[in-house]
Amino acid sequence: MTLNEFPELAERIAAVHRVDTDLEEAARAHLDDLTKPKGSLGRLEDIAARLYMISGAMTPLSVDPALVVVASGDHGVVEEGVSPFPQEVTGQMLRNILDGGAGISVLSRLNGMKMIVVDAGGAHDALSEDEYPKLRNLRLARGTANMARSCAMSPEHCVKALLYGMDTVRYAVEQGVRLVATGEMGIGNTTSATALFCALYGLEPEHVAGPGAGLNAAGVRHKAEVIRRALQLHHDVIEARDILGIASALGGYEIMVLAGVVLGAAESHIPVLVDGFISTSAYAVAHAFCPAVAEYSFLAHASAEPGYVLVMECMKQKPLLQLEFRLGEGTGCAAAFPLLRASAAIYNEMATFSGANVTGTVTQPVA
Amino acid sequence: MTLNEFPELAERIAAVHRVDTDLEEAARAHLDDLTKPKGSLGRLEDIAARLYMISGAMTPLSVDPALVVVASGDHGVVEEGVSPFPQEVTGQMLRNILDGGAGISVLSRLNGMKMIVVDAGGAHDALSEDEYPKLRNLRLARGTANMARSCAMSPEHCVKALLYGMDTVRYAVEQGVRLVATGEMGIGNTTSATALFCALYGLEPEHVAGPGAGLNAAGVRHKAEVIRRALQLHHDVIEARDILGIASALGGYEIMVLAGVVLGAAESHIPVLVDGFISTSAYAVAHAFCPAVAEYSFLAHASAEPGYVLVMECMKQKPLLQLEFRLGEGTGCAAAFPLLRASAAIYNEMATFSGANVTGTVTQPVA
Repeated sequence: MTLNEFPELAERIAAVHRVDTDLEEAARAHLDDLTKPKGSLGRLEDIAARLYMISGAMTPLSVDPALVVVASGDHGVVEEGVSPFPQEVTGQMLRNILDGGAGISVLSRLNGMKMIVVDAGGAHDALSEDEYPKLRNLRLARGTANMARSCAMSPEHCVKALLYGMDTVRYAVEQGVRLVATGEMGIGNTTSATALFCALYGLEPEHVAGPGAGLNAAGVRHKAEVIRRALQLHHDVIEARDILGIASALGGYEIMVLAGVVLGAAESHIPVLVDGFISTSAYAVAHAFCPAVAEYSFLAHASAEPGYVLVMECMKQKPLLQLEFRLGEGTGCAAAFPLLRASAAIYNEMATFSGANVTGTVTQPVA
Repeated sequence: MTLNEFPELAERIAAVHRVDTDLEEAARAHLDDLTKPKGSLGRLEDIAARLYMISGAMTPLSVDPALVVVASGDHGVVEEGVSPFPQEVTGQMLRNILDGGAGISVLSRLNGMKMIVVDAGGAHDALSEDEYPKLRNLRLARGTANMARSCAMSPEHCVKALLYGMDTVRYAVEQGVRLVATGEMGIGNTTSATALFCALYGLEPEHVAGPGAGLNAAGVRHKAEVIRRALQLHHDVIEARDILGIASALGGYEIMVLAGVVLGAAESHIPVLVDGFISTSAYAVAHAFCPAVAEYSFLAHASAEPGYVLVMECMKQKPLLQLEFRLGEGTGCAAAFPLLRASAAIYNEMATFSGANVTGTVTQPVA
């Protein structure tokens, strides 16, 4: 099946358009007039210029309120022994995130970001949305199928997850949200993410597979072998570069919801912060469907997973932070979010040379 | 003259003691019990463990309220033509910082950091402390002397600046401040900072000198030559490793105030965030006087000045952020400060495995 058999998704993706790059000149002119040597706020200035283009020149720039979408799901491939944690941890951590005790709970609260948690397809029993107002029960299945033996999910479920992510952003933007961020939880999902990177960028599992939540060296070798088997099983969709086929064969429900969040941000013209290894695989899927998402996306944090460097080379991206996180959940986004706020603030609030009566540079000798 | 001729400073430096590294085990045990794979919050965990040791095991960890000390001063060496900006900009920017329009004004406000601005020795007329409550007029002189022709300042003035920085922190801590950060403004001060790095670490000016606020290639070559002349003129104190002599010969008033801030943080057992290139030269001076300051110091941001990489190798330090800033003022500290808050928050607020009923890792095959 191809994307065209799902007209709503196909049409919404086709309707995503690039940012207006003609706006960059005005943004840079404003930044160069602020009381600092030109370009001396480095990447904050690049971010501010992109925020200006994404917003369509709407000032003051703002990234508030921001919403972290944490998606969780289980992975049939764990029956191959690819994670040091048992599958029950997905549901336990889902509850811990909602109870406020997980890393993303603490960091999103600290930084004043809203959070919702999508149970995209956990193997555990459903938690109650009445008990947990931040919970969204999508629950397309009780975990994916084992990608080393069959497709992880049906194309229908894959499309449902993608549209759910897009609709989540659309609704959030209607409620006033100005930035979305991705986070995830799912035992086994570095295996799915690694398989997606290999399929989309032609990388070798042995070069990308890493310890995830804490595998030892023998475990990492085994994980790479399992991924190699999955890539062989699904070689037809990979060779045909059938993105929906690849996503269905190798993906996770939570990863597809997050790919939808990335697509939805571009659709709704707001910036999206992309978290670490697994969220970046969701970005990779969204980018394969729609390259324009790159202009709306900010990669928050360089995962400590060893294959991440290779993936960045393929994507020609450079994340904002390198703090050796390997947790996921959106913690890298929460850590990087203050930098986006800072970018907006310098653009909006710094004085100009003329306004502050500060003298610019004097003439220099010719180099 | 040596440090021993200034007994107050000598005694206070001698009284600084190291953190209690025996506390690290307890901090790591707590961090390992939080609901995340071990070590998966990377450098935030390292920061949290250091905050715990610095505080002497006082929990909850806190870095609030935080105070940015922005010190400004002028440099006689600008008469050699080492900056593309005229000297009058120091005073103009001092006013701009106080008026709230400079980068550090915006970013400290955004992140809820207090700020004071020390006019350590500007060539301009004094601004009014009545008009600007955040201003502190130290004003040891109207700029340093030209270090390429004489000592930049007297040892007496150097000691006064150092003690002023230490006293500033002591008073702030009495008022409840839990973290200090350094920032600076001073036309020509990358020249002073570069000379200090070369003198303290035996580096060549041609390898460390960079564009500062925007010199072109010819300007950078000229700046390196001026620094080489200064190093030759003051070779006696450099070869004798007379730190006070080096600081007096090559320093700036604002740099010495900030070296005092770093010493004062260690004296008062609070963490200090160190900004970019110039602030790092202040840290280098403080470290040369008192190596224990390393345990209290967090380097905020890797300066884009090309020599910074060499300096980091000498210091065996790795800054938290790499965002291509080359502004100073404390902007790197303000950008990094949310990461220290995040470190304290995860330590204080995350749930434990037992408390949240989350299962730990299962047994893995032997590697």
